[in-house]
Amino acid sequence: MRMRYKPWAEDYLKSHPSIVDVDGTHNGKMQAWFDNDAPIHIEIGSGMGQFITTLAIQNPDINFISIEREKNVMVKVLDKVLEHNLTNIKLICNEAGELTEYFMPNEVSRIYLNFSDPWPKRRHTKRRLTYASFLKLYKEILKDDGAIHFKTDNRGLFAYSLESMSQFGMYFTKINLNLHQEDDEDNIETEYERKFSDKGSRIYRMEAQFHSN
Amino acid sequence: MRMRYKPWAEDYLKSHPSIVDVDGTHNGKMQAWFDNDAPIHIEIGSGMGQFITTLAIQNPDINFISIEREKNVMVKVLDKVLEHNLTNIKLICNEAGELTEYFMPNEVSRIYLNFSDPWPKRRHTKRRLTYASFLKLYKEILKDDGAIHFKTDNRGLFAYSLESMSQFGMYFTKINLNLHQEDDEDNIETEYERKFSDKGSRIYRMEAQFHSN
Ligand SMILES: C[S@@+](CC[C@H](N)C(=O)[O-])C[C@H]1O[C@@H](n2cnc3c(N)ncnc32)[C@H](O)[C@@H]1O
Ligand SMILES: C[S@@+](CC[C@H](N)C(=O)[O-])C[C@H]1O[C@@H](n2cnc3c(N)ncnc32)[C@H](O)[C@@H]1O
Repeated sequence: MRMRYKPWAEDYLKSHPSIVDVDGTHNGKMQAWFDNDAPIHIEIGSGMGQFITTLAIQNPDINFISIEREKNVMVKVLDKVLEHNLTNIKLICNEAGELTEYFMPNEVSRIYLNFSDPWPKRRHTKRRLTYASFLKLYKEILKDDGAIHFKTDNRGLFAYSLESMSQFGMYFTKINLNLHQEDDEDNIETEYERKFSDKGSRIYRMEAQFHSN
Repeated sequence: MRMRYKPWAEDYLKSHPSIVDVDGTHNGKMQAWFDNDAPIHIEIGSGMGQFITTLAIQNPDINFISIEREKNVMVKVLDKVLEHNLTNIKLICNEAGELTEYFMPNEVSRIYLNFSDPWPKRRHTKRRLTYASFLKLYKEILKDDGAIHFKTDNRGLFAYSLESMSQFGMYFTKINLNLHQEDDEDNIETEYERKFSDKGSRIYRMEAQFHSN
Protein backbone atom coordinates (compact mmCIF):
# COMPACT_ATOMS: atom_id res chain seq x y z
CA MET A 1 0.00 0.00 0.00
CA ARG A 2 1.52 3.30 -1.09
CA MET A 3 0.47 6.44 0.71
CA ARG A 4 1.70 9.98 0.36
CA TYR A 5 5.03 10.37 2.18
CA LYS A 6 4.41 11.74 5.62
CA PRO A 7 7.64 13.22 7.00
CA TRP A 8 6.09 13.34 10.48
CA ALA A 9 5.05 9.65 10.44
CA GLU A 10 8.14 8.28 12.17
CA ASP A 11 8.03 10.92 14.93
CA TYR A 12 4.32 10.33 15.46
CA LEU A 13 4.82 6.56 15.77
CA LYS A 14 7.80 7.03 18.09
CA SER A 15 5.81 9.35 20.31
CA HIS A 16 3.68 6.33 21.35
CA PRO A 17 6.30 3.83 22.52
CA SER A 18 3.79 1.97 24.71
CA ILE A 19 1.86 1.00 21.54
CA VAL A 20 4.31 1.05 18.64
CA ASP A 21 7.66 -0.69 18.24
CA VAL A 22 9.57 1.09 15.47
CA ASP A 23 13.07 -0.19 16.09
CA GLY A 24 12.93 -3.58 17.75
CA THR A 25 12.85 -2.40 21.36
CA HIS A 26 10.66 -5.35 22.28
CA ASN A 27 12.54 -8.02 20.35
CA GLY A 28 11.84 -11.41 21.91
CA LYS A 29 9.63 -9.89 24.61
CA MET A 30 6.18 -9.69 23.07
CA GLN A 31 4.21 -11.56 25.72
CA ALA A 32 5.98 -9.54 28.42
CA TRP A 33 5.07 -6.30 26.66
CA PHE A 34 1.37 -7.14 27.06
CA ASP A 35 1.99 -7.99 30.70
CA ASN A 36 -0.62 -10.79 30.68
CA ASP A 37 -0.96 -14.42 29.52
CA ALA A 38 -3.68 -13.99 26.91
CA PRO A 39 -3.10 -15.60 23.49
CA ILE A 40 -1.37 -13.55 20.80
CA HIS A 41 -2.92 -13.12 17.32
CA ILE A 42 -0.95 -11.20 14.71
CA GLU A 43 -1.73 -9.71 11.33
CA ILE A 44 1.01 -9.29 8.75
CA GLY A 45 0.58 -6.39 6.32
CA SER A 46 -2.31 -4.73 8.16
CA GLY A 47 -2.56 -1.75 5.87
CA MET A 48 -4.73 0.88 7.54
CA GLY A 49 -5.78 -1.54 10.26
CA GLN A 50 -9.56 -1.69 10.02
CA PHE A 51 -9.55 -5.50 10.32
CA ILE A 52 -7.25 -5.91 13.32
CA THR A 53 -8.60 -2.94 15.27
CA THR A 54 -12.16 -4.26 14.84
CA LEU A 55 -10.99 -7.66 16.10
CA ALA A 56 -9.29 -5.97 19.06
CA ILE A 57 -12.50 -4.13 19.97
CA GLN A 58 -14.56 -7.35 19.73
CA ASN A 59 -12.06 -9.57 21.60
CA PRO A 60 -10.70 -7.85 24.70
CA ASP A 61 -9.23 -11.15 25.96
CA ILE A 62 -6.87 -11.60 23.04
CA ASN A 63 -3.61 -9.75 22.46
CA PHE A 64 -3.32 -8.44 18.91
CA ILE A 65 -0.23 -7.34 17.05
CA SER A 66 -0.33 -5.47 13.76
CA ILE A 67 2.79 -5.82 11.63
CA GLU A 68 3.15 -3.35 8.77
CA ARG A 69 6.37 -2.18 7.18
CA GLU A 70 5.16 1.17 5.84
CA LYS A 71 5.30 3.93 8.45
CA ASN A 72 3.05 6.12 6.31
CA VAL A 73 0.38 3.42 6.52
CA MET A 74 0.98 2.42 10.13
CA VAL A 75 0.01 5.88 11.32
CA LYS A 76 -3.57 5.04 10.26
CA VAL A 77 -3.53 1.98 12.51
CA LEU A 78 -2.23 4.06 15.40
CA ASP A 79 -4.99 6.63 14.83
CA LYS A 80 -7.60 3.87 15.23
CA VAL A 81 -5.95 2.41 18.35
CA LEU A 82 -5.91 5.84 19.99
CA GLU A 83 -9.43 6.71 18.87
CA HIS A 84 -10.82 3.56 20.52
CA ASN A 85 -8.46 3.61 23.50
CA LEU A 86 -7.44 0.02 22.78
CA THR A 87 -5.07 -1.58 25.28
CA ASN A 88 -4.95 -5.10 23.76
CA ILE A 89 -3.10 -4.23 20.58
CA LYS A 90 0.52 -3.43 19.75
CA LEU A 91 2.04 -2.29 16.46
CA ILE A 92 5.31 -3.47 14.98
CA CYS A 93 6.64 -1.38 12.12
CA ASN A 94 8.88 -3.80 10.26
CA GLU A 95 9.24 -6.44 7.55
CA ALA A 96 7.55 -9.83 7.81
CA GLY A 97 10.99 -11.34 7.25
CA GLU A 98 12.03 -10.10 10.71
CA LEU A 99 9.23 -11.96 12.55
CA THR A 100 11.50 -14.35 14.39
CA GLU A 101 13.38 -11.40 15.90
CA TYR A 102 10.24 -10.38 17.76
CA PHE A 103 8.59 -13.69 18.67
CA MET A 104 9.78 -16.69 20.63
CA PRO A 105 9.14 -20.17 19.20
CA ASN A 106 5.49 -21.24 19.76
CA GLU A 107 4.48 -17.83 21.09
CA VAL A 108 1.74 -17.01 18.57
CA SER A 109 -1.74 -18.61 18.37
CA ARG A 110 -2.93 -17.22 15.08
CA ILE A 111 -1.59 -15.37 12.04
CA TYR A 112 -3.82 -13.32 9.74
CA LEU A 113 -2.80 -12.50 6.17
CA ASN A 114 -5.28 -10.27 4.36
CA PHE A 115 -4.99 -9.25 0.72
CA SER A 116 -1.24 -9.70 0.74
CA ASP A 117 0.57 -8.24 -2.24
CA PRO A 118 0.08 -10.82 -5.03
CA TRP A 119 3.45 -10.48 -6.79
CA PRO A 120 2.06 -12.15 -9.90
CA LYS A 121 5.35 -12.39 -11.83
CA ARG A 122 7.09 -15.71 -11.47
CA ARG A 123 10.43 -14.05 -10.74
CA HIS A 124 8.85 -12.40 -7.69
CA THR A 125 7.52 -15.67 -6.23
CA LYS A 126 9.88 -15.41 -3.24
CA ARG A 127 8.25 -12.15 -2.15
CA ARG A 128 4.80 -13.69 -1.71
CA LEU A 129 3.94 -13.97 1.98
CA THR A 130 2.98 -17.63 1.44
CA TYR A 131 6.34 -18.59 -0.11
CA ALA A 132 8.14 -21.40 1.72
CA SER A 133 10.70 -19.12 3.42
CA PHE A 134 7.86 -17.18 5.10
CA LEU A 135 5.97 -20.37 6.01
CA LYS A 136 9.11 -21.50 7.79
CA LEU A 137 9.03 -18.38 9.98
CA TYR A 138 5.30 -18.80 10.66
CA LYS A 139 5.83 -22.43 11.68
CA GLU A 140 8.58 -21.39 14.07
CA ILE A 141 6.58 -18.75 15.94
CA LEU A 142 3.16 -20.51 15.85
CA LYS A 143 2.00 -22.88 18.53
CA ASP A 144 1.57 -26.49 17.34
CA ASP A 145 -2.19 -26.05 16.99
CA GLY A 146 -1.88 -22.46 15.77
CA ALA A 147 -3.54 -21.45 12.51
CA ILE A 148 -3.05 -19.12 9.57
CA HIS A 149 -6.17 -17.34 8.31
CA PHE A 150 -5.75 -15.96 4.82
CA LYS A 151 -8.07 -13.90 2.62
CA THR A 152 -7.53 -12.48 -0.84
CA ASP A 153 -9.33 -11.46 -3.98
CA ASN A 154 -6.38 -12.62 -6.07
CA ARG A 155 -7.14 -15.95 -7.73
CA GLY A 156 -3.55 -16.61 -8.70
CA LEU A 157 -2.18 -15.87 -5.24
CA PHE A 158 -4.85 -18.06 -3.63
CA ALA A 159 -4.13 -21.03 -5.92
CA TYR A 160 -0.38 -20.54 -5.40
CA SER A 161 -0.84 -20.42 -1.63
CA LEU A 162 -2.82 -23.68 -1.57
CA GLU A 163 0.01 -25.31 -3.52
CA SER A 164 2.83 -23.78 -1.51
CA MET A 165 1.26 -24.41 1.90
CA SER A 166 0.24 -28.02 1.15
CA GLN A 167 3.71 -28.73 -0.26
CA PHE A 168 5.23 -27.34 2.92
CA GLY A 169 3.15 -29.81 4.98
CA MET A 170 0.14 -27.70 5.89
CA TYR A 171 -3.50 -28.71 5.74
CA PHE A 172 -6.69 -26.72 5.37
CA THR A 173 -9.48 -26.84 7.91
CA LYS A 174 -11.76 -24.41 6.10
CA ILE A 175 -11.80 -23.09 2.55
CA ASN A 176 -14.22 -20.61 0.98
CA LEU A 177 -13.99 -20.14 -2.77
CA ASN A 178 -16.55 -17.34 -2.79
CA LEU A 179 -16.69 -16.01 0.74
CA HIS A 180 -19.33 -13.35 0.28
CA GLN A 181 -21.73 -15.94 -1.19
CA GLU A 182 -21.10 -18.34 1.68
CA ASP A 183 -21.09 -18.14 5.45
CA ASP A 184 -19.66 -14.72 6.09
CA GLU A 185 -21.75 -13.58 9.06
CA ASP A 186 -18.65 -13.31 11.24
CA ASN A 187 -16.52 -11.90 8.47
CA ILE A 188 -14.69 -8.66 9.24
CA GLU A 189 -13.99 -6.73 6.08
CA THR A 190 -10.62 -5.17 5.39
CA GLU A 191 -10.15 -1.98 3.40
CA TYR A 192 -9.02 -3.89 0.31
CA GLU A 193 -11.84 -6.41 0.67
CA ARG A 194 -14.44 -3.66 0.58
CA LYS A 195 -12.81 -2.11 -2.46
CA PHE A 196 -12.51 -5.33 -4.45
CA SER A 197 -15.85 -6.84 -3.54
CA ASP A 198 -17.53 -3.55 -4.50
CA LYS A 199 -15.92 -4.05 -7.91
CA GLY A 200 -17.50 -7.52 -8.09
CA SER A 201 -14.39 -9.61 -7.35
CA ARG A 202 -14.75 -12.93 -5.57
CA ILE A 203 -13.13 -13.19 -2.17
CA TYR A 204 -11.23 -16.39 -1.30
CA ARG A 205 -10.49 -17.48 2.27
CA MET A 206 -8.73 -20.34 4.01
CA GLU A 207 -7.75 -21.52 7.48
CA ALA A 208 -4.60 -23.64 7.57
CA GLN A 209 -2.43 -25.47 10.09
CA PHE A 210 0.88 -27.30 10.09
CA HIS A 211 0.95 -31.09 10.22
CA SER A 212 2.86 -32.00 13.35
CA ASN A 213 6.00 -33.98 12.58
CA MET B 1 -25.51 -40.23 -14.17
CA ARG B 2 -28.95 -41.77 -14.70
CA MET B 3 -29.79 -43.13 -18.11
CA ARG B 4 -32.86 -44.96 -19.32
CA TYR B 5 -32.72 -48.59 -18.18
CA LYS B 6 -31.29 -50.71 -20.95
CA PRO B 7 -32.17 -54.38 -20.36
CA TRP B 8 -29.61 -55.40 -23.00
CA ALA B 9 -26.76 -53.42 -21.39
CA GLU B 10 -25.34 -56.27 -19.31
CA ASP B 11 -25.42 -58.73 -22.21
CA TYR B 12 -23.79 -56.18 -24.51
CA LEU B 13 -20.98 -55.50 -22.02
CA LYS B 14 -20.47 -59.24 -21.39
CA SER B 15 -20.24 -59.93 -25.10
CA HIS B 16 -16.91 -58.04 -25.11
CA PRO B 17 -14.94 -59.80 -22.38
CA SER B 18 -11.60 -58.74 -23.85
CA ILE B 19 -12.53 -55.10 -23.15
CA VAL B 20 -15.02 -55.09 -20.26
CA ASP B 21 -14.79 -56.69 -16.83
CA VAL B 22 -18.33 -56.94 -15.42
CA ASP B 23 -17.79 -59.41 -12.62
CA GLY B 24 -14.25 -59.23 -11.37
CA THR B 25 -12.70 -61.77 -13.75
CA HIS B 26 -9.47 -59.79 -13.81
CA ASN B 27 -9.25 -59.07 -10.09
CA GLY B 28 -5.63 -58.42 -9.16
CA LYS B 29 -4.44 -58.96 -12.73
CA MET B 30 -4.82 -55.63 -14.43
CA GLN B 31 -1.28 -55.22 -15.77
CA ALA B 32 -1.38 -58.80 -17.03
CA TRP B 33 -4.66 -58.14 -18.83
CA PHE B 34 -2.94 -55.45 -20.93
CA ASP B 35 -0.07 -57.83 -21.61
CA ASN B 36 2.51 -55.01 -21.62
CA ASP B 37 4.45 -52.87 -19.12
CA ALA B 38 3.04 -49.46 -20.00
CA PRO B 39 1.83 -47.26 -17.12
CA ILE B 40 -1.79 -47.54 -16.04
CA HIS B 41 -4.03 -44.44 -15.77
CA ILE B 42 -7.57 -44.88 -14.49
CA GLU B 43 -10.69 -42.74 -14.42
CA ILE B 44 -13.31 -43.28 -11.74
CA GLY B 45 -16.88 -42.43 -12.69
CA SER B 46 -16.22 -42.04 -16.43
CA GLY B 47 -19.81 -41.43 -17.39
CA MET B 48 -20.11 -41.74 -21.17
CA GLY B 49 -16.35 -41.86 -21.59
CA GLN B 50 -15.53 -38.94 -23.85
CA PHE B 51 -12.59 -37.90 -21.66
CA ILE B 52 -10.86 -41.25 -21.25
CA THR B 53 -11.41 -42.45 -24.82
CA THR B 54 -9.94 -39.17 -26.13
CA LEU B 55 -6.92 -39.68 -23.85
CA ALA B 56 -6.60 -43.28 -25.10
CA ILE B 57 -6.59 -42.13 -28.72
CA GLN B 58 -3.96 -39.44 -28.00
CA ASN B 59 -1.71 -41.64 -25.84
CA PRO B 60 -1.22 -45.09 -27.37
CA ASP B 61 1.65 -45.83 -24.96
CA ILE B 62 -0.48 -45.59 -21.84
CA ASN B 63 -2.93 -48.20 -20.56
CA PHE B 64 -6.26 -46.65 -19.61
CA ILE B 65 -8.99 -48.10 -17.41
CA SER B 66 -12.47 -46.64 -17.17
CA ILE B 67 -14.33 -47.44 -13.95
CA GLU B 68 -18.06 -46.77 -13.94
CA ARG B 69 -20.68 -48.51 -11.86
CA GLU B 70 -23.70 -47.91 -14.09
CA LYS B 71 -23.99 -50.52 -16.85
CA ASN B 72 -26.46 -48.30 -18.72
CA VAL B 73 -23.78 -45.62 -18.90
CA MET B 74 -20.82 -47.94 -19.49
CA VAL B 75 -22.32 -49.10 -22.79
CA LYS B 76 -21.58 -45.59 -24.14
CA VAL B 77 -17.93 -46.00 -23.25
CA LEU B 78 -17.83 -49.40 -24.94
CA ASP B 79 -19.42 -47.90 -28.07
CA LYS B 80 -16.58 -45.37 -28.27
CA VAL B 81 -13.87 -47.98 -27.69
CA LEU B 82 -15.26 -50.14 -30.49
CA GLU B 83 -15.82 -47.21 -32.84
CA HIS B 84 -12.15 -46.18 -32.56
CA ASN B 85 -10.79 -49.73 -32.35
CA LEU B 86 -8.89 -48.84 -29.18
CA THR B 87 -6.64 -51.55 -27.76
CA ASN B 88 -5.13 -49.54 -24.88
CA ILE B 89 -8.27 -49.22 -22.77
CA LYS B 90 -10.21 -51.59 -20.51
CA LEU B 91 -13.53 -51.04 -18.75
CA ILE B 92 -14.40 -52.09 -15.21
CA CYS B 93 -18.08 -51.98 -14.35
CA ASN B 94 -18.05 -51.65 -10.58
CA GLU B 95 -18.03 -49.40 -7.53
CA ALA B 96 -15.00 -47.23 -6.68
CA GLY B 97 -15.07 -48.87 -3.26
CA GLU B 98 -13.93 -52.14 -4.87
CA LEU B 99 -10.76 -50.63 -6.37
CA THR B 100 -8.34 -52.61 -4.25
CA GLU B 101 -9.91 -55.87 -5.48
CA TYR B 102 -8.70 -55.05 -8.99
CA PHE B 103 -5.35 -53.34 -8.47
CA MET B 104 -2.17 -54.42 -6.73
CA PRO B 105 -0.47 -51.94 -4.40
CA ASN B 106 1.49 -49.32 -6.39
CA GLU B 107 0.15 -50.52 -9.72
CA VAL B 108 -1.47 -47.29 -10.89
CA SER B 109 0.34 -44.15 -12.11
CA ARG B 110 -2.55 -41.71 -12.28
CA ILE B 111 -6.17 -41.43 -11.18
CA TYR B 112 -8.65 -39.09 -12.87
CA LEU B 113 -11.79 -37.91 -11.11
CA ASN B 114 -14.02 -35.74 -13.29
CA PHE B 115 -17.22 -34.05 -12.13
CA SER B 116 -17.73 -36.62 -9.40
CA ASP B 117 -21.15 -36.59 -7.78
CA PRO B 118 -21.00 -33.67 -5.28
CA TRP B 119 -23.16 -35.14 -2.48
CA PRO B 120 -23.69 -31.67 -1.00
CA LYS B 121 -25.52 -32.77 2.14
CA ARG B 122 -23.30 -33.16 5.17
CA ARG B 123 -24.76 -36.57 6.03
CA HIS B 124 -23.59 -37.84 2.61
CA THR B 125 -19.99 -36.70 3.08
CA LYS B 126 -18.75 -40.30 3.14
CA ARG B 127 -20.01 -40.87 -0.39
CA ARG B 128 -17.82 -38.15 -1.90
CA LEU B 129 -15.02 -39.70 -3.93
CA THR B 130 -12.51 -37.48 -2.10
CA TYR B 131 -13.60 -38.63 1.37
CA ALA B 132 -10.79 -40.13 3.46
CA SER B 133 -11.90 -43.76 3.00
CA PHE B 134 -11.54 -43.37 -0.79
CA LEU B 135 -8.22 -41.51 -0.48
CA LYS B 136 -6.95 -44.52 1.48
CA LEU B 137 -7.76 -46.81 -1.46
CA TYR B 138 -6.15 -44.41 -3.95
CA LYS B 139 -3.01 -44.22 -1.85
CA GLU B 140 -2.81 -48.00 -1.73
CA ILE B 141 -3.03 -48.57 -5.49
CA LEU B 142 -1.06 -45.47 -6.60
CA LYS B 143 2.69 -45.49 -7.13
CA ASP B 144 4.59 -43.27 -4.69
CA ASP B 145 4.90 -40.51 -7.27
CA GLY B 146 1.45 -41.17 -8.71
CA ALA B 147 -1.04 -38.32 -8.96
CA ILE B 148 -4.75 -37.63 -8.77
CA HIS B 149 -6.15 -35.19 -11.33
CA PHE B 150 -9.51 -33.81 -10.34
CA LYS B 151 -11.92 -31.47 -12.16
CA THR B 152 -15.33 -30.22 -11.13
CA ASP B 153 -17.72 -27.33 -11.54
CA ASN B 154 -18.92 -27.80 -7.97
CA ARG B 155 -17.41 -25.14 -5.69
CA GLY B 156 -18.41 -26.91 -2.50
CA LEU B 157 -16.98 -30.25 -3.59
CA PHE B 158 -13.74 -28.61 -4.72
CA ALA B 159 -13.26 -26.75 -1.42
CA TYR B 160 -14.13 -29.92 0.51
CA SER B 161 -11.65 -31.93 -1.54
CA LEU B 162 -8.81 -29.48 -0.87
CA GLU B 163 -9.56 -29.79 2.84
CA SER B 164 -9.98 -33.56 2.86
CA MET B 165 -6.94 -34.30 0.70
CA SER B 166 -4.61 -31.93 2.57
CA GLN B 167 -5.80 -33.33 5.91
CA PHE B 168 -5.06 -36.84 4.63
CA GLY B 169 -1.47 -35.78 3.87
CA MET B 170 -1.70 -34.85 0.22
CA TYR B 171 -0.26 -31.81 -1.49
CA PHE B 172 -1.19 -29.93 -4.63
CA THR B 173 1.19 -29.45 -7.52
CA LYS B 174 -1.23 -27.49 -9.70
CA ILE B 175 -4.49 -25.72 -8.96
CA ASN B 176 -6.74 -23.85 -11.36
CA LEU B 177 -9.60 -21.86 -9.83
CA ASN B 178 -11.04 -20.93 -13.22
CA LEU B 179 -9.65 -23.43 -15.69
CA HIS B 180 -11.26 -22.12 -18.85
CA GLN B 181 -9.83 -18.64 -18.17
CA GLU B 182 -6.36 -20.04 -17.57
CA ASP B 183 -4.04 -22.44 -19.36
CA ASP B 184 -6.41 -24.99 -20.79
CA GLU B 185 -4.81 -25.68 -24.17
CA ASP B 186 -4.28 -29.33 -23.29
CA ASN B 187 -7.60 -29.65 -21.51
CA ILE B 188 -9.84 -32.50 -22.65
CA GLU B 189 -13.48 -31.70 -21.96
CA THR B 190 -15.82 -34.21 -20.39
CA GLU B 191 -19.55 -34.37 -21.14
CA TYR B 192 -20.43 -32.66 -17.87
CA GLU B 193 -17.74 -30.05 -18.34
CA ARG B 194 -19.19 -29.01 -21.68
CA LYS B 195 -22.67 -28.83 -20.22
CA PHE B 196 -21.71 -26.77 -17.16
CA SER B 197 -19.26 -24.44 -18.85
CA ASP B 198 -21.87 -23.73 -21.52
CA LYS B 199 -24.13 -22.63 -18.65
CA GLY B 200 -21.37 -20.24 -17.50
CA SER B 201 -20.08 -22.24 -14.52
CA ARG B 202 -16.44 -21.98 -13.49
CA ILE B 203 -14.41 -25.14 -13.79
CA TYR B 204 -11.96 -25.98 -10.97
CA ARG B 205 -9.01 -28.32 -11.41
CA MET B 206 -6.21 -29.73 -9.27
CA GLU B 207 -3.31 -32.16 -9.44
CA ALA B 208 -2.45 -33.81 -6.12
CA GLN B 209 0.04 -36.30 -4.70
CA PHE B 210 0.60 -38.08 -1.43
CA HIS B 211 3.41 -36.97 0.87
CA SER B 212 5.68 -39.96 1.29
CA ASN B 213 5.87 -41.11 4.89
C1 LIG C 1 -2.44 -4.89 -0.44
S1 LIG C 1 -2.21 -4.20 1.15
C2 LIG C 1 -3.52 -4.92 2.12
C3 LIG C 1 -3.79 -4.16 3.38
C4 LIG C 1 -4.87 -4.75 4.32
N1 LIG C 1 -4.43 -6.06 4.83
C5 LIG C 1 -6.21 -4.87 3.65
O1 LIG C 1 -6.64 -6.02 3.37
O2 LIG C 1 -6.84 -3.83 3.36
C6 LIG C 1 -0.76 -5.08 1.70
C7 LIG C 1 -0.08 -4.42 2.89
O3 LIG C 1 0.96 -5.29 3.35
C8 LIG C 1 2.14 -4.52 3.60
N2 LIG C 1 3.25 -5.44 3.36
C9 LIG C 1 3.54 -6.04 2.18
N3 LIG C 1 4.60 -6.84 2.32
C10 LIG C 1 5.00 -6.74 3.62
C11 LIG C 1 6.07 -7.33 4.35
N4 LIG C 1 6.93 -8.17 3.74
N5 LIG C 1 6.19 -7.03 5.66
C12 LIG C 1 5.31 -6.16 6.24
N6 LIG C 1 4.29 -5.58 5.59
C13 LIG C 1 4.14 -5.86 4.29
C14 LIG C 1 2.06 -3.37 2.61
O4 LIG C 1 2.83 -2.27 3.05
C15 LIG C 1 0.56 -3.08 2.58
O5 LIG C 1 0.19 -2.15 3.54
C1 LIG D 1 -21.67 -36.62 -12.60
S1 LIG D 1 -21.20 -37.98 -13.55
C2 LIG D 1 -19.74 -37.39 -14.41
C3 LIG D 1 -19.41 -38.22 -15.61
C4 LIG D 1 -18.14 -37.84 -16.36
N1 LIG D 1 -16.94 -38.05 -15.53
C5 LIG D 1 -18.18 -36.42 -16.88
O1 LIG D 1 -17.42 -35.58 -16.36
O2 LIG D 1 -18.94 -36.12 -17.82
C6 LIG D 1 -20.54 -39.09 -12.33
C7 LIG D 1 -20.39 -40.50 -12.81
O3 LIG D 1 -19.71 -41.26 -11.82
C8 LIG D 1 -20.37 -42.50 -11.61
N2 LIG D 1 -20.11 -42.85 -10.20
C9 LIG D 1 -20.50 -42.16 -9.13
N3 LIG D 1 -20.09 -42.73 -7.99
C10 LIG D 1 -19.40 -43.84 -8.36
C11 LIG D 1 -18.74 -44.86 -7.62
N4 LIG D 1 -18.72 -44.84 -6.29
N5 LIG D 1 -18.14 -45.84 -8.31
C12 LIG D 1 -18.17 -45.84 -9.67
N6 LIG D 1 -18.78 -44.91 -10.42
C13 LIG D 1 -19.40 -43.92 -9.77
C14 LIG D 1 -21.82 -42.22 -11.91
O4 LIG D 1 -22.50 -43.41 -12.28
C15 LIG D 1 -21.72 -41.22 -13.06
O5 LIG D 1 -21.68 -41.85 -14.32
